[in-house]
Amino acid sequence: MINRLAIIGMGLIGGSLSLALKQAGRVKHVVGFSRQASTRSEALSLGIIDSAECNIADAIKNAEIVVLAVPVGAIADTLISIAPYVKDNMIITDVGSVKAQVVDSAKLALGDKFRQFVPGHPIAGTEKSGPAAAFAELYQEHRVVLTPTKQTDEEAVKKVCNMWIAAGAEVSIMTAEHHDDVLAATSHLPHLLAFNLVDMLAEEDADVAEVLRYAAGGFRDFSRIASSDPEMWRDISLTNSTAILSLLNKYQHQMSLLHQAIEQQDGDYLIAVFERAKQARDTCFNEPSLKDSSEV
Amino acid sequence: MINRLAIIGMGLIGGSLSLALKQAGRVKHVVGFSRQASTRSEALSLGIIDSAECNIADAIKNAEIVVLAVPVGAIADTLISIAPYVKDNMIITDVGSVKAQVVDSAKLALGDKFRQFVPGHPIAGTEKSGPAAAFAELYQEHRVVLTPTKQTDEEAVKKVCNMWIAAGAEVSIMTAEHHDDVLAATSHLPHLLAFNLVDMLAEEDADVAEVLRYAAGGFRDFSRIASSDPEMWRDISLTNSTAILSLLNKYQHQMSLLHQAIEQQDGDYLIAVFERAKQARDTCFNEPSLKDSSEV
Repeated sequence: MINRLAIIGMGLIGGSLSLALKQAGRVKHVVGFSRQASTRSEALSLGIIDSAECNIADAIKNAEIVVLAVPVGAIADTLISIAPYVKDNMIITDVGSVKAQVVDSAKLALGDKFRQFVPGHPIAGTEKSGPAAAFAELYQEHRVVLTPTKQTDEEAVKKVCNMWIAAGAEVSIMTAEHHDDVLAATSHLPHLLAFNLVDMLAEEDADVAEVLRYAAGGFRDFSRIASSDPEMWRDISLTNSTAILSLLNKYQHQMSLLHQAIEQQDGDYLIAVFERAKQARDTCFNEPSLKDSSEV
Repeated sequence: MINRLAIIGMGLIGGSLSLALKQAGRVKHVVGFSRQASTRSEALSLGIIDSAECNIADAIKNAEIVVLAVPVGAIADTLISIAPYVKDNMIITDVGSVKAQVVDSAKLALGDKFRQFVPGHPIAGTEKSGPAAAFAELYQEHRVVLTPTKQTDEEAVKKVCNMWIAAGAEVSIMTAEHHDDVLAATSHLPHLLAFNLVDMLAEEDADVAEVLRYAAGGFRDFSRIASSDPEMWRDISLTNSTAILSLLNKYQHQMSLLHQAIEQQDGDYLIAVFERAKQARDTCFNEPSLKDSSEV
């Protein structure tokens, strides 16, 4: 049982965590921080939090766990602003989509208290945001990755781990660097590829709608992630730039080989690439390979 | 009413067309051609065709419309093999995913009878293939593109158009070149991008499954098309190489600008690309922008 949980940021991620823990009966009191009065009153009236604070020092006072549920671009500043008020037995954790840079910021901001910081990333979300979007079931059947360092207090890791399990999530532990590599591959790079394609098509043809009328299920699924929040993705791209650029280099190199194979009408090269890809995907996802169309 | 329809190739596409026309009561007799005895007897016993032929001359004899429902890589040879038996009032059409090269092949193979050939492409399919996968509703709410040339007989275009409408499809007419450009943008290039990514990840990490455990709905949707049939996509890549390479050049150039922007931490550039992409996609698809996750 968590006696007092402070959630900094009253959005979908922080709000859903609070609702999930309340529903599971695993938290006594949740205090929410937001700069905006309207967000505070909305979160209160929706029953997401038990009390609201507009001063961050007051918000974290006496909290057992403080969750930084702010966008990844705002985590460094938030760490700096709470640092003077962090008590010795307080646990801090975050929900940022990139971890190595957050770890560095936390070291700088928290100093001796860095051991109390448990870097975390719940891999969950919807297209909606704000307190009204929060729901208790968001984390069910979703993964949360924690990336403690050697200095991180083991008891703190255990407590944050238990918090997420209580919220319905499955918790994995890995290094921040491995997290950032894996997410660059499975999330960050795919987003860039989709953004780049849709932007190119939009530029290519003033009447994109005409072009996209002929796009069937395959393109619709492929391009769905190009509809994601631009600011969030700017922050992720800039924050995880090292891992992203390293993968992007490799991707561009492989794409130039594919380009060359098409140019030289090298069917054997193409089929080898397509077969390896199909096999990898079919092996990894236990689902019908294509919902809508094998072709388009 | 079509008195006699010949379908060359008893797969999902040809079989579903036959079933749709039968269900609509718009065809008297369907004769199916396949080289394989097992496919012929399967198509007969499933009621997809009324008679089966293993000799292509017999198959098209007295047919009002001949549909070449074979993979795009096999269309040129099929045209050559039917050419000697094509009568003056016979209409020939195909279902190939690439059109300019099919038009060229048809000109060469059919000579004077080229005007009886109506190039077509039903934008539909599922992950399954073979006669057993065919179903009458496949073309409902799907588009069929016809790409007649100036020489194509107008009556023939009208009849093929009516056939597809009777099968439940919506028919569009455009040039073969425009078709190939549009499909390169909305289908062929996205497939190459997805194949390339999944192949790269499979190479990158022997244990792809470990990596993909952390992939949520976004990646699953994005990579679904990497599960498509490798041979079909080899044929499409080689057949529509001109349009694909031209787009791929542009894509690679834009990707290198994105790469540079990340390297230089140019957030303004990134957000401009992401916003244009998001706006284009949200405008074109009237659906919630992201089903599963705004982040992963």
